[in-house]
Amino acid sequence: MTMKNQITSALSDFFFEYETPRQVLVRNRRVGVVCRLIQLGVLVYIIGWVFIYEKGYQSTDTAVSSVLTKMKGVGYTNVSGIETVWDVADYVFPPQGDSSFVVMTNYIITEGQKMGKCPELKGMHDCTSNADCVGGSFKRTGHGQMTGVCVNKTQTCEVLAWCPIEDDHTIPNPPLLISAENYTLFIKNSVTFPLFGVTRSNLVEGIDGNYIGKCLFHPKKEPLCPIFKLGDIVKLSGFSFEKLAQEGGAIGIVVDWTCNFDVDVKHCKPEYNFHGLYGNPSETDSASASVGYNFRYAKHYMEDKIPKRTLLKVFGIRFDVIVKSLARKFDIIPTLTAIGSGVGIFGVATVVCDLVLLYLLPKREFYKNMKFKYTDTQTQVSSVSLL
Amino acid sequence: MTMKNQITSALSDFFFEYETPRQVLVRNRRVGVVCRLIQLGVLVYIIGWVFIYEKGYQSTDTAVSSVLTKMKGVGYTNVSGIETVWDVADYVFPPQGDSSFVVMTNYIITEGQKMGKCPELKGMHDCTSNADCVGGSFKRTGHGQMTGVCVNKTQTCEVLAWCPIEDDHTIPNPPLLISAENYTLFIKNSVTFPLFGVTRSNLVEGIDGNYIGKCLFHPKKEPLCPIFKLGDIVKLSGFSFEKLAQEGGAIGIVVDWTCNFDVDVKHCKPEYNFHGLYGNPSETDSASASVGYNFRYAKHYMEDKIPKRTLLKVFGIRFDVIVKSLARKFDIIPTLTAIGSGVGIFGVATVVCDLVLLYLLPKREFYKNMKFKYTDTQTQVSSVSLL
Amino acid sequence: MTMKNQITSALSDFFFEYETPRQVLVRNRRVGVVCRLIQLGVLVYIIGWVFIYEKGYQSTDTAVSSVLTKMKGVGYTNVSGIETVWDVADYVFPPQGDSSFVVMTNYIITEGQKMGKCPELKGMHDCTSNADCVGGSFKRTGHGQMTGVCVNKTQTCEVLAWCPIEDDHTIPNPPLLISAENYTLFIKNSVTFPLFGVTRSNLVEGIDGNYIGKCLFHPKKEPLCPIFKLGDIVKLSGFSFEKLAQEGGAIGIVVDWTCNFDVDVKHCKPEYNFHGLYGNPSETDSASASVGYNFRYAKHYMEDKIPKRTLLKVFGIRFDVIVKSLARKFDIIPTLTAIGSGVGIFGVATVVCDLVLLYLLPKREFYKNMKFKYTDTQTQVSSVSLL
Repeated sequence: MTMKNQITSALSDFFFEYETPRQVLVRNRRVGVVCRLIQLGVLVYIIGWVFIYEKGYQSTDTAVSSVLTKMKGVGYTNVSGIETVWDVADYVFPPQGDSSFVVMTNYIITEGQKMGKCPELKGMHDCTSNADCVGGSFKRTGHGQMTGVCVNKTQTCEVLAWCPIEDDHTIPNPPLLISAENYTLFIKNSVTFPLFGVTRSNLVEGIDGNYIGKCLFHPKKEPLCPIFKLGDIVKLSGFSFEKLAQEGGAIGIVVDWTCNFDVDVKHCKPEYNFHGLYGNPSETDSASASVGYNFRYAKHYMEDKIPKRTLLKVFGIRFDVIVKSLARKFDIIPTLTAIGSGVGIFGVATVVCDLVLLYLLPKREFYKNMKFKYTDTQTQVSSVSLL
Repeated sequence: MTMKNQITSALSDFFFEYETPRQVLVRNRRVGVVCRLIQLGVLVYIIGWVFIYEKGYQSTDTAVSSVLTKMKGVGYTNVSGIETVWDVADYVFPPQGDSSFVVMTNYIITEGQKMGKCPELKGMHDCTSNADCVGGSFKRTGHGQMTGVCVNKTQTCEVLAWCPIEDDHTIPNPPLLISAENYTLFIKNSVTFPLFGVTRSNLVEGIDGNYIGKCLFHPKKEPLCPIFKLGDIVKLSGFSFEKLAQEGGAIGIVVDWTCNFDVDVKHCKPEYNFHGLYGNPSETDSASASVGYNFRYAKHYMEDKIPKRTLLKVFGIRFDVIVKSLARKFDIIPTLTAIGSGVGIFGVATVVCDLVLLYLLPKREFYKNMKFKYTDTQTQVSSVSLL
Repeated sequence: MTMKNQITSALSDFFFEYETPRQVLVRNRRVGVVCRLIQLGVLVYIIGWVFIYEKGYQSTDTAVSSVLTKMKGVGYTNVSGIETVWDVADYVFPPQGDSSFVVMTNYIITEGQKMGKCPELKGMHDCTSNADCVGGSFKRTGHGQMTGVCVNKTQTCEVLAWCPIEDDHTIPNPPLLISAENYTLFIKNSVTFPLFGVTRSNLVEGIDGNYIGKCLFHPKKEPLCPIFKLGDIVKLSGFSFEKLAQEGGAIGIVVDWTCNFDVDVKHCKPEYNFHGLYGNPSETDSASASVGYNFRYAKHYMEDKIPKRTLLKVFGIRFDVIVKSLARKFDIIPTLTAIGSGVGIFGVATVVCDLVLLYLLPKREFYKNMKFKYTDTQTQVSSVSLL
């Protein structure tokens, strides 16, 4: 029973008591004002900055997204009197509408290549005699395997390669497919924020088939139209279309989803930004490390049972549709964590004020006596012995 | 020596003293119960919610991942008596097994196109006289460059383009390659969590060559088999294969890695989910902004030294394998941060209880006197002068 | 006026007062040393671990990035006396320089396939009579649609397919394009940290056109050269090129941007790491679930008005350029949050020391009396009544 009584007594003491710290109330104008100002400063920081500016009461999430693209438009070239029209199936790589694709704006075409032996290009492969061309080996930027023969006519090594060798010394200027400026790009983007269970598409409320058929993106007048003119995209990213089209380049189309789910979800709309991915629009320095964007693409065919190919050195603008996302929503945990840390900072303010009180003010000895109660086992023993 | 004594004395004072706040122990049932309840509430929040539910004692990491895919299966079409079999090299775009690819389910084929002049399609390019067709210009959805002639027979503008123009007004119904329902998809996915230095593959322990050769994914019976039947994928995402196959669509295959590294790493296994990427399965509204998924693809060849091409308007299902990852593991810092913030919240609870004690209870004056000790320089000066 | 006086008095009380907790200063060596050690431990944890090691005073950001790649190099094969040279347009899939691409290192070529009926491959499609071959159906790993006939000569079912059927039982050894070891890869990578507004390229200061033309990546001597020899990449990831080239494989090239923006931004440079994406370099177990990497690719053409194709089963090394990024910069909020939580932990240390003081030491009753002041309404009432 004594055990039971002890437990009951302890529980009763625990539940029916309340501890509160004893405090000294210092009535001193200077200390009072200074410390209240410090405390108000901490409060302003917590409410103003952490909560309102940095939205510390919300938890964040990024999206899982998917992008489909579709180009429309027709280009026209007239090379040596031969008129050719280039449509989507000819100038977009790859054709299936990924988030990253190239639109051909210029090219060097070498038709009817077939496997055989022919002299290399002048420039990096010069030779004066057969000894300069080691048969069976390759040069780092060569087009084929050297046969060991130095061709007199061109003074270059003979190679086993797709002949004739592509001559890419001169890049057509103006760009052959500068008409790409008028092509249009349609972007379909779907984002899902898994933490909040919300899915949005860039074809927001109010966009239907009719609107898409006629609209064209404009940053101020039509900011939500998902159809973009290539010339506009390049201009909005700060580049000149003609300069970019000649040697190629890369542009990023950023679809920015910054959403606050504490308000109606229909306010979650995308914002489109454009910027060059490499190099500064003001850079015209041709000695810069790596200029332009190009790749080689071959169309293979059979002619009279001989495998042949048409080689295209494609210069184009590479478009990367990049989805940036950040969603916020009120959540109890970051809120209470911010409050808890704020209370901790208040404690630091208290320490600072105490230091002022106990070490700097004229009456610090007086305040020390009010604040502290000293225990000293020696003194206690002696006072007991006196009794 | 006085300096040294002062330092020794200060250090001795610092290390051999301990400050503890003095407290008032209020024995009042109402206050005691209310405040203990508030404190217990804060404790339950910290332990129950922050630690157990939200796992606030763990730090998190997302994975760097890589996906390889491989399709298997054969399709069959019989168009105008011509039987054709379509295998992987014919219906998958692109062929190299990326995480994002298209399986062709329907198509409109225009064979033997060659560059020339021919009349546009009826519908968007109608004209009544040559004045309606401005030579050298393009229409926004046109197939080529207008020559300036209005063709009487069709009443449409003549264009320089790949002729004959593709007629895509009628999409084949039923879809030509509905047999795609039986194709199978193999996904190989490797994830690495850099913070924890763990690498996992979706071919988990227990999966070997034999198992892969025979198994087929089922959400309940075979949840870890990496081979999926296309028909199953579409059904599990809530769509009808035949509807999706006709005009195309997009499906996301989410490989979800949610792992807790406080237990054995072999429990870190993927979960497969499927959902449509655009549009709701219940939407049959054909006026919706953008329906289906298609792109144009050309196979170029030479015939009698003339460049020709076969144009395919490909309707297909675009599959995006999306890897979602979140790994957690015990870490001392989020644990102590949560504890520290929790102690701060306790401080808020104390402030609330103090307010009740000092401003609301009947004996508040009594408690104020117990809690506070007042300092007043005026009073002190006068009491000193009396001595 | 009384109201106004009350408000003025309350404000005056609020602003000109300062509350500081009263404390007991316990002079006891054991308690003092133990508690100071606990407090010093908490301080060392906050300053040493949270601030210095884990950089808790900085906020973090990950980058939005874009990658361009370009392969250079020429391969050579001599199959049955036919010499062929393979250049970039022949061995890279896809051609346009994405972050993820395949370099063909081995292949099985089936030339001149045309649609027709022919017997299946031996192995999985054996039959003894027509009854074993169900006309109009497909086998899971079949090459075409069965016609219902069992071909005597091969004892396999006849199928409608691209004939002749590809025979992929024997993979060429040594790999046909083992010369891929000498190809070079150029990576151009641009990262943008949106939170800090900083954009960096892996062509850092000091890299110009000349340097790129001649350098080759080496982990110690040339760690910033963006040109990589394929053989080096595979070796640095722990694999043997010849083993990987035969059946194909996948390698991840991680471009690691770990930047501290509290120092000059020019110190933000990438670090290149290489690792296999599937399987352990030490695994030679051919019974493992899925070995190698391959896909099928067809080149279509017309011969005498008949559609034909050349089928390539491509074995290659798949390269994934993965960008990992983490940038840190001093930010006031994580700093103050860490300090606030630290103060909270100090509170926990105080609780622990109090427990020692009040429940474990010999003089605990004495300390309890010094620390607590008891209020008891019963006692108060009785003492008042005595007056």
